[in-house]
Amino acid sequence: MVSEVFREASPSEFFYRNRQLAGFSNPARALYTAIRELFENSLDACELHRIKPQIMVSLRRVEDISKTVGIYKLYVQDNGSGIPKEYVLDALGRVFFSSKYILRQSRGTFGLGGTMAILYAQATSGRPVKVTTSTGGKTVVSYTFKIDIKKNRPKILRHKNYRNKDKWRGTILELYLEGDYSRAARYIINYFKETAAITPYAEITFIDPEGNLYFFRRTYNKMPNPPRETLPHPHGVDIETLKHLINTSPEELTLIEFLSNKFHRVGITTAKRFLKYAKIRDNLRLGELTDPDIEKLYKALQNYDKFISPSAEVLSPIGEDIFRKGIEKEFNPEYIDVVTRPPSSYQGHPFIIEAALAYGGEIPGSAGEIVLFRYANKIPLLYDEGSDVSTKVLNNINISSYKRPGDKPTALFIHIASTKIPFKTVGKEAIADVPEIEREIELAIRYLLRRFSKYTKRIIRRIHAEKRLKIFEKHLRLMSKFSAELAGKEEPDITPLLNKLKQRYGIKENQAPPSYS
Amino acid sequence: MVSEVFREASPSEFFYRNRQLAGFSNPARALYTAIRELFENSLDACELHRIKPQIMVSLRRVEDISKTVGIYKLYVQDNGSGIPKEYVLDALGRVFFSSKYILRQSRGTFGLGGTMAILYAQATSGRPVKVTTSTGGKTVVSYTFKIDIKKNRPKILRHKNYRNKDKWRGTILELYLEGDYSRAARYIINYFKETAAITPYAEITFIDPEGNLYFFRRTYNKMPNPPRETLPHPHGVDIETLKHLINTSPEELTLIEFLSNKFHRVGITTAKRFLKYAKIRDNLRLGELTDPDIEKLYKALQNYDKFISPSAEVLSPIGEDIFRKGIEKEFNPEYIDVVTRPPSSYQGHPFIIEAALAYGGEIPGSAGEIVLFRYANKIPLLYDEGSDVSTKVLNNINISSYKRPGDKPTALFIHIASTKIPFKTVGKEAIADVPEIEREIELAIRYLLRRFSKYTKRIIRRIHAEKRLKIFEKHLRLMSKFSAELAGKEEPDITPLLNKLKQRYGIKENQAPPSYS
Repeated sequence: MVSEVFREASPSEFFYRNRQLAGFSNPARALYTAIRELFENSLDACELHRIKPQIMVSLRRVEDISKTVGIYKLYVQDNGSGIPKEYVLDALGRVFFSSKYILRQSRGTFGLGGTMAILYAQATSGRPVKVTTSTGGKTVVSYTFKIDIKKNRPKILRHKNYRNKDKWRGTILELYLEGDYSRAARYIINYFKETAAITPYAEITFIDPEGNLYFFRRTYNKMPNPPRETLPHPHGVDIETLKHLINTSPEELTLIEFLSNKFHRVGITTAKRFLKYAKIRDNLRLGELTDPDIEKLYKALQNYDKFISPSAEVLSPIGEDIFRKGIEKEFNPEYIDVVTRPPSSYQGHPFIIEAALAYGGEIPGSAGEIVLFRYANKIPLLYDEGSDVSTKVLNNINISSYKRPGDKPTALFIHIASTKIPFKTVGKEAIADVPEIEREIELAIRYLLRRFSKYTKRIIRRIHAEKRLKIFEKHLRLMSKFSAELAGKEEPDITPLLNKLKQRYGIKENQAPPSYS
Repeated sequence: MVSEVFREASPSEFFYRNRQLAGFSNPARALYTAIRELFENSLDACELHRIKPQIMVSLRRVEDISKTVGIYKLYVQDNGSGIPKEYVLDALGRVFFSSKYILRQSRGTFGLGGTMAILYAQATSGRPVKVTTSTGGKTVVSYTFKIDIKKNRPKILRHKNYRNKDKWRGTILELYLEGDYSRAARYIINYFKETAAITPYAEITFIDPEGNLYFFRRTYNKMPNPPRETLPHPHGVDIETLKHLINTSPEELTLIEFLSNKFHRVGITTAKRFLKYAKIRDNLRLGELTDPDIEKLYKALQNYDKFISPSAEVLSPIGEDIFRKGIEKEFNPEYIDVVTRPPSSYQGHPFIIEAALAYGGEIPGSAGEIVLFRYANKIPLLYDEGSDVSTKVLNNINISSYKRPGDKPTALFIHIASTKIPFKTVGKEAIADVPEIEREIELAIRYLLRRFSKYTKRIIRRIHAEKRLKIFEKHLRLMSKFSAELAGKEEPDITPLLNKLKQRYGIKENQAPPSYS
């Protein structure tokens, strides 16, 4: 008989043992993921406080393990809000301790990334991490620490407080980790480039292990509105959340007060109407509620279809202007079109789909190909494209029914902003196929393809018109010459006439027409 | 200025909030996942103890929420080992408490599935779960409980001990959960069918909400060898694990004793040779080790290339005979071929790839299509095929270079058994592309395609031979007739001659040749 040993694992231990779940599956991918997680925390720390991001990431190889794999020193510095000193250690040194456990759009979703990067670094290099941070107050704090994996707690090795003479604000992280830059380089650089394409208000510097500098300059000076925290929408709570909300509210609250204070989009009028629908007395106090009452309340909340949809005002979309400027800056396309879909919601979470179509210029890919760029809460998603909702939508659209030039690649950029992105993995790479999201993405793509199709047709029409005009030009000249000879008059100047025709067909002088397949 | 609230989430809360990570993304998928997780726990509880599985799953709709979504009662009964009564509550009512946190092949990987199913059930139905279990001893215990999500602890509502008169052994789970059977049915039934195809030694009964009975009978009476627990391989430990092993071992152990007792495939001779290579004194005691010593030891462990590869004897592959019998039972193919690759390893974990190719019969799919059936540690993987390593391998093979009949679908079954499956998600749907695994899968697929190609050629050759023979037959008869007339003799019987030719080409009488594209 085999004996079975039951035991508990700490959250750190669980995620450490299963680090592939969070994107740390091999030295190349882990390097990419570590950079990405720390960089995204930096961007969040800026944007949430309307600070124009200025972020520096550098990577240096300090030790060889094999030809490709080595130990790297990763340095990330931002000018964000800084971490309050009482939270620094827990926020970075404990799994499941985070500021992301509220309803607010942010790049971080699981509150895991930073800690996972540190766990991975310490496990592969054996070295501690150093954090230096200040919220701009009198002191700058610095900790050098490791994570005690069994206890899921930080273990301080060194601690210093400095006087903050220069009123510096921001966070610096320094850690040593195993990585394979040769295989990760392509992803890391694309990651920065694709991020820059939607954050033209950020200044990003990356120094690679060879000392090459990648500088993404700021080309846009307005910051988007930061996301705001929101209350749960009545259609987004399950019975557990409802019970928790009831248990953590004062007993003497009436149901009306409770509903109108604790839920998104529920005012006193809505609360009254709803309770009438639910056939529950509206001055009932929370302390008086029995378990069957709560179940009744829950079912009614689910079924009542007159609640107002969640508001998208708490979200921080990219914005059409920034989206366009960013793509122009990074890809310099010949054609670009941007669309923002009206806000929608799923399971009580508001979301907005923004999409762009760009063609030609420096869009990478082969002729006629459609390249997909996926974004969620302003982060580019580079892996697992095959299982993403956008890929599914794109595959289901009959692309060939939309006219499209076949000479250069076309890019589709899809961004979803939401208080909750339904990621399939902790590694945040693919979005699950929620029907409401699928629908909005499809409408956005179809809209862009339709307009692009018209543009394409216009160009094709222009090419034909040009051809016609060329023939016309030739004959007209001859005709005017012969007529003038016949009439014994001087040949008239027909250029104004031709220009008029050109203008009518929208043909500029000396423009080479693109070729279409 | 936006304030940031930092707080801790309990493991239950984290996974409950992010339940899509574990496959509970919508009512259809959640129903599938819940059944699957409980069923797999049941199979593990049988196989680990060499008990021939006899498992009953039933699903009943007890309440309507919408037309398709409802509350279902899920009942799962097995004849497995039972859960020791001191662990019942923690094993089911606490996230990160499990018997799976050791190095042993099992269907369960994260020790999360059962608890997640219970969490989801309670959050969607508000009702508690009931577990009844016995290890075959004097008592049967039964608990009705809920999970306190904030505390990550079970909360008992009812508890009873019964006298176990019949020496019953096994576990029964009863829970109520929101689901959408209409959309999940296809997956659930395929799941059972595909499981039955590799466990012909199990008896599986499923009763669907309409009362239809799906019975998968036992057609094979030998159980595979159960998996065994193993020690970590020196190439599979990182510095954190090494430190933990050192800290939890007696201080007075010498390095030789430590290495030969705590590591897989390290005996005294290997330990001595290794320490010589590492230039570390071999009678050094654990208590004397300094941090730099441990780092030195770790690096040497990583770089020493003379350790013996991890042994695959601890694994429990399906076995060629069972694999073949199972596929024959469920799909009744015209052609079947099975291959077991030699054991290999990645990151210190042993693994074995088993693969089968089946053609015709009841293989589902369209003519000429290659249908992929993916398995990991004896569970079928039904979702996220697009991001699985087997799909990647298959896409990279130039299939058209292998001859293959185009009239019916061909199925490829890929199974990986390992002490650690590199799943991409907690939902256990797709396997990450670890190079070592990729290579073995590719070799298995190529081998099967090559052999199938030969078989195909043989059939095509047979068809050609038959054609030739038909012409030959006709002319031979005429020739013999004319010759007989000319010679004035009686016509000879040429049937024996024709039969001889048929035999030579392997053509049976009255066999309709399959058609090939």
